[in-house]
Amino acid sequence: IAIIHVLYLLCSMKTVARRPSGTLGLWLKTSLRFLNMSVRESFNPESYELDKNFRLTRFTELKGTGCKVPQDVLQKLLESLQENHYQEDEQFLGAVMPRLGIGMDTCVIPLRHGGLSLVQTTDYIYPIVDDPYMMGRIACANVLSDLYAMGVTECDNMLMLLGVSNKLTEKERDKVMPLVIQGFKDASEEAGTSITGGQTVINPWIVLGGVATTVCQPNEFIMPDNAVPGDVLVLTKPLGTQVAVAVHQWLDIPEKWNKIKLVVSQEDVELAYQEAMLNMARLNRTAAGLMHTFNAHAATDITGFGILGHAQNLARQQRTEVSFVIHNLPVLAKMAAVSKACGNMFGLMHGTCPETSGGLLICLPREQAARFCAEIKSPKYGEGHQAWIIGIVEKGNRAARIIDKPRIIEVAPQVATQNVNTTPGATS
Amino acid sequence: IAIIHVLYLLCSMKTVARRPSGTLGLWLKTSLRFLNMSVRESFNPESYELDKNFRLTRFTELKGTGCKVPQDVLQKLLESLQENHYQEDEQFLGAVMPRLGIGMDTCVIPLRHGGLSLVQTTDYIYPIVDDPYMMGRIACANVLSDLYAMGVTECDNMLMLLGVSNKLTEKERDKVMPLVIQGFKDASEEAGTSITGGQTVINPWIVLGGVATTVCQPNEFIMPDNAVPGDVLVLTKPLGTQVAVAVHQWLDIPEKWNKIKLVVSQEDVELAYQEAMLNMARLNRTAAGLMHTFNAHAATDITGFGILGHAQNLARQQRTEVSFVIHNLPVLAKMAAVSKACGNMFGLMHGTCPETSGGLLICLPREQAARFCAEIKSPKYGEGHQAWIIGIVEKGNRAARIIDKPRIIEVAPQVATQNVNTTPGATS
Repeated sequence: IAIIHVLYLLCSMKTVARRPSGTLGLWLKTSLRFLNMSVRESFNPESYELDKNFRLTRFTELKGTGCKVPQDVLQKLLESLQENHYQEDEQFLGAVMPRLGIGMDTCVIPLRHGGLSLVQTTDYIYPIVDDPYMMGRIACANVLSDLYAMGVTECDNMLMLLGVSNKLTEKERDKVMPLVIQGFKDASEEAGTSITGGQTVINPWIVLGGVATTVCQPNEFIMPDNAVPGDVLVLTKPLGTQVAVAVHQWLDIPEKWNKIKLVVSQEDVELAYQEAMLNMARLNRTAAGLMHTFNAHAATDITGFGILGHAQNLARQQRTEVSFVIHNLPVLAKMAAVSKACGNMFGLMHGTCPETSGGLLICLPREQAARFCAEIKSPKYGEGHQAWIIGIVEKGNRAARIIDKPRIIEVAPQVATQNVNTTPGATS
Repeated sequence: IAIIHVLYLLCSMKTVARRPSGTLGLWLKTSLRFLNMSVRESFNPESYELDKNFRLTRFTELKGTGCKVPQDVLQKLLESLQENHYQEDEQFLGAVMPRLGIGMDTCVIPLRHGGLSLVQTTDYIYPIVDDPYMMGRIACANVLSDLYAMGVTECDNMLMLLGVSNKLTEKERDKVMPLVIQGFKDASEEAGTSITGGQTVINPWIVLGGVATTVCQPNEFIMPDNAVPGDVLVLTKPLGTQVAVAVHQWLDIPEKWNKIKLVVSQEDVELAYQEAMLNMARLNRTAAGLMHTFNAHAATDITGFGILGHAQNLARQQRTEVSFVIHNLPVLAKMAAVSKACGNMFGLMHGTCPETSGGLLICLPREQAARFCAEIKSPKYGEGHQAWIIGIVEKGNRAARIIDKPRIIEVAPQVATQNVNTTPGATS
């Protein structure tokens, strides 16, 4: 780990170079802390003088980005925002400046100042894991993910949105919320930014979110609309986070557990849960950097609408008439089986299962895709990064689909195997 | 109204000049629409095929910015964010660039690009009035208000944060939320900006908010830390919005109504409610522009912590050792009496009563203050703008207080009197 870390640090110097001094030490601290997470004990409420049955996830009835308003309803609600009075293309040095608004999760606004663009996103979710510190990290990674999907690697500013549940006792609030905030803060620092403000209100459910903003030169971001036939689709995190956290809660609910105990062991579930947590907490920042290295044509991040929903959104954005076809679904080990055992109630096989802080779905030139998948696993980026080729871009009517019998790639938990480099299908 | 409007239009051309074409027509539309609001009928659910007892404000247990976590609790929760790793002052052309973070509602972040600063704020609240369209306007004005308090008159981008209550029927949701969104959108357009994204989730309570962002040159914003002894405090909206909306609901609750019916008539309450609604929906943009004209030294906007809470926050920010002393409290007509009749349960007389989308509290050089108050009432800025001198800045330890028996300025409802220019105390 020490060696991995030194390499990680060296490579990270590039991105932190233009940051104020002291940043290096900070990367050291945060990246070490991050590496340590893989041997992290699961959260024990009693060690914080809380009731042993305290569960963060009980302070909401909807999990993670599963709280999103259904896509069709949302489209209808936001219709009126589509016709937009300031959408005339702005010019800079004779070139039309790109603009991105409603539809994708990140907006790109041409600024009045010398060719700069405002790239900005906001997101907020409900608790999906019971470890408050990790939940804070996940919430922050989830917000930043939309910037990373634009190939933006530097966040200029982070605002934090917090809803403190009115159902928390004062003691619970004072023990738990600082842990959440610390996790959010540590993830911000790992991203090379810091929290400068936000809004904190009382709400029935715990709310965790933020606003990530960057002001970019044209070469610092990649518009998600340049996919062409022949491109290949790459995904940078396994699917099934929602399934893993759900079945993990079923460990406490016999009638639900009985439905799946034949296809999965308690240890499998614990491992999948830990793995899901680590994946959700992992920043998509490395992938964002590699989008530039390997000339990505478009990307989005996978969250509440599931891989198919976000693939469809991305397809709709393309300038060339293309469609996305998904052949492979990388899924957390055993979660596909669990999902089938529940009559696919999660929609995992259909690509509609919500993910929280999911991976990036990237359109890459065919010849670059395999190299992208190999490079991202390099220890110099720290442990745990993976990527899979999951589909293709073909001529079409800006739609996305999953083939009838997609190949399920069982993604083995890395928490178990310390060897990060042997992941099935990683270069399939 | 026609004449007022033409003048308004002419003066607004300055600020919209650098906007894309078509903006003028838009100002025409929105400012006319805004003027029309003063003769707006109160919201009738049945005209939208909703039950006549439908009340937007029932979809939360906390009103407006009354949902804020108590100031002391918040301070404790956010402690860990105070020590900040990227706060080294950045220099541009040898000059230290200003930075503002946790503590004030708006953050100012020096950017990597030629002396520009990112000025940004986020806010979200719960329904405080029952008219969905007006509620949308209020939510938007409330978000923008933090920018205006920095003397920023142009918003480069607006993101909308929506929580759709899971207690709304589908029909209610589809009737009501579009009205809310339309109100939010119209207010954004009146502000010369547009909504390019955001986040919409399901939540027990209806959530309304957004993120307002501008990238500024140094002369486009006013840091809120330059108050000096001898300055004068000016307030640009009357207090008592929370009281007005609360007692308006008491009209339906006999036991509560009986407590106050001796000091206030039903008509007084209806007028105060309408007036509160118009004030909350009014942008502080004109005041922000005049902050430059009259050389304001510092400002903040009045929301959830009440006038005293926000005055204290502002005092704490000052570079010179000053204190704020408040002598006058401009209050919506009759609401002071109501507040007293309730044993001051609202904290209005103590300055702790939450306001939603309140006015700007501005530190002005003494000789400029009266001119500011006179100028803002000029019809060329549209109807309804007011301002009062409410206190002074003296040498002190960065605290704020209200004198023992502050003078209550009864602010007559303008909905009743069409004559905008005779408001008691306006130049006191």
